Amino acid sequence: MMIAYQRAQRGQKAITEEDLKSALINKPPGTPELTIMSFKNAEHGTTLGAMSASHSNALSKVDIPAFDWPMAEFPKYKYPLDHFESLNKGQDEKCLAQIEDLLDKYEKKNMPVAGIAVEPIQSDCTTEASADFFQGLQGITNRRGIYLMFDESRTGCGATGRFWCHEHFCLPCHVDAVVFGGKCQLAGFFHSLDLSPKERDRLYEPWMGDPVKLYIFEAIICLIEQLNLMKQVEETGKYMKEGLMEMEIQYYDLIHSTRGLGSILAFDAQCPALRDNIICRLRQKGVIVGQCGSQGISLRPSLTFTKRHVDIFLQKLEEVI
Amino acid sequence: MMIAYQRAQRGQKAITEEDLKSALINKPPGTPELTIMSFKNAEHGTTLGAMSASHSNALSKVDIPAFDWPMAEFPKYKYPLDHFESLNKGQDEKCLAQIEDLLDKYEKKNMPVAGIAVEPIQSDCTTEASADFFQGLQGITNRRGIYLMFDESRTGCGATGRFWCHEHFCLPCHVDAVVFGGKCQLAGFFHSLDLSPKERDRLYEPWMGDPVKLYIFEAIICLIEQLNLMKQVEETGKYMKEGLMEMEIQYYDLIHSTRGLGSILAFDAQCPALRDNIICRLRQKGVIVGQCGSQGISLRPSLTFTKRHVDIFLQKLEEVI
Repeated sequence: MMIAYQRAQRGQKAITEEDLKSALINKPPGTPELTIMSFKNAEHGTTLGAMSASHSNALSKVDIPAFDWPMAEFPKYKYPLDHFESLNKGQDEKCLAQIEDLLDKYEKKNMPVAGIAVEPIQSDCTTEASADFFQGLQGITNRRGIYLMFDESRTGCGATGRFWCHEHFCLPCHVDAVVFGGKCQLAGFFHSLDLSPKERDRLYEPWMGDPVKLYIFEAIICLIEQLNLMKQVEETGKYMKEGLMEMEIQYYDLIHSTRGLGSILAFDAQCPALRDNIICRLRQKGVIVGQCGSQGISLRPSLTFTKRHVDIFLQKLEEVI
Repeated sequence: MMIAYQRAQRGQKAITEEDLKSALINKPPGTPELTIMSFKNAEHGTTLGAMSASHSNALSKVDIPAFDWPMAEFPKYKYPLDHFESLNKGQDEKCLAQIEDLLDKYEKKNMPVAGIAVEPIQSDCTTEASADFFQGLQGITNRRGIYLMFDESRTGCGATGRFWCHEHFCLPCHVDAVVFGGKCQLAGFFHSLDLSPKERDRLYEPWMGDPVKLYIFEAIICLIEQLNLMKQVEETGKYMKEGLMEMEIQYYDLIHSTRGLGSILAFDAQCPALRDNIICRLRQKGVIVGQCGSQGISLRPSLTFTKRHVDIFLQKLEEVI
């Protein structure tokens, strides 16, 4: 994203000798003060750049230097979504407006934003945002000539019932870049032609990837198709979400805010202590669930999870709450 | 290195709530302005942190933001080494003094250096430094309570006739940290106990490594031992270096500065054009060599290279120069 952004800044002109010389010693103009915008509670990885764009898991960030990159608010919805439509719409609008402000602010600081990194569903608290929000976000990046990168490390490879989660958002334009990992069993990225470096040997990488992992990924894709797993994830996810929402109504003083898509689901307990208690007692019954945020319980079943498994899970959950 | 450095700065005290909160938004005190010192022409990798410590391959660095980290000079020797002993010793001393100055300068800028990253042999120009230099470097880091990390990505796994190249330097103390990759077929690091984080879950990494690659690495180590490859690399490397040095004398107006250890060798042509010509004509004879620096030719034969192969190589080289 930075390479393409700077190329546009140079008016598509070639890199100069001065650019090369200054880049060697980490100085401008070759080394620009470009930034990547990301979101509060984002989780993008653990290298110094990815960590600068991550704003969750404080313990892993402490003592490690980071770039001064802008952090925007991610929409915070109230659940159930259909009860709080206008409030949640307001969240989308507020966040998009703040993103525009932050982009202006960093532009004025001479630290322009080259691109925005975003998770389709934030993994830290299983926080989702609407298709409207993502369409708005793409509108902003396209209007400003910057890039939008979806981090599908956790959401990709069919986890939400589509191969990539961003397919749910009905984006009007193609996406600029997608990074993946996790279930794919290999990590990588793909992007639009615009983001391709024009110079030979620009992306210097002596490690040329692991072909074995490509075969594994290919086999996974084949199995997903053969077993029709994306449809299964969609249906099972819907079934589990509905089951949880019914339980929410029944136990309204104990759990709430069921959210997510496909196999990436979560709900909140009324307080952190209750959350910990539920997780602990589920484990005693042989059910492993994760924690997310301060009082959330996250569910990340595999793609082969079926309605039969959902029934078992919901029964055990009812036994412990 | 940063975690251990900051722990010492805190006087071994626990991380505070303020540290955690500020780290989440990339601000001090949780996010300190620590730096890593590295060397001119260094090559450490392509993530934003590793690239900030790399000062070679300008084209891969252009347009990418980087940390303002100190870059020290690496000794530049004249060859043959035994003809220029005092001059080269002077290089060591000059560089070590400059390192001390740079450490002071960044300390005063409130951007203290937590550690120094160094290649035992710089891969960019196959630039070597003496055991004296590395002993001096370790002395500086130990005296100042900072860390020394050897990047053995290219030099490790027996490439220089020892399993790790830094074993050649007879360092008085154990090394703080070593990173490896390349020939090992898996990348990783090991370090002294002092560098271990004391808190659980401090190093957050959802990808827990690839056990298959560990088996491959184990098999490589077994083969190196069974076939006595380290001894072979040492002897073959010595034989090739001597052959090149004899050729240097014979063709003193064409090639010079034979250098390196084991299978990591290089020599310079009198000018870049001659270098390119030699590489091109060797390729026509079925011999692939690399280029390094402005007029260098680098040799990186595999561990199984034998004296018989050296004879063939030297004969072909003589035919083209």
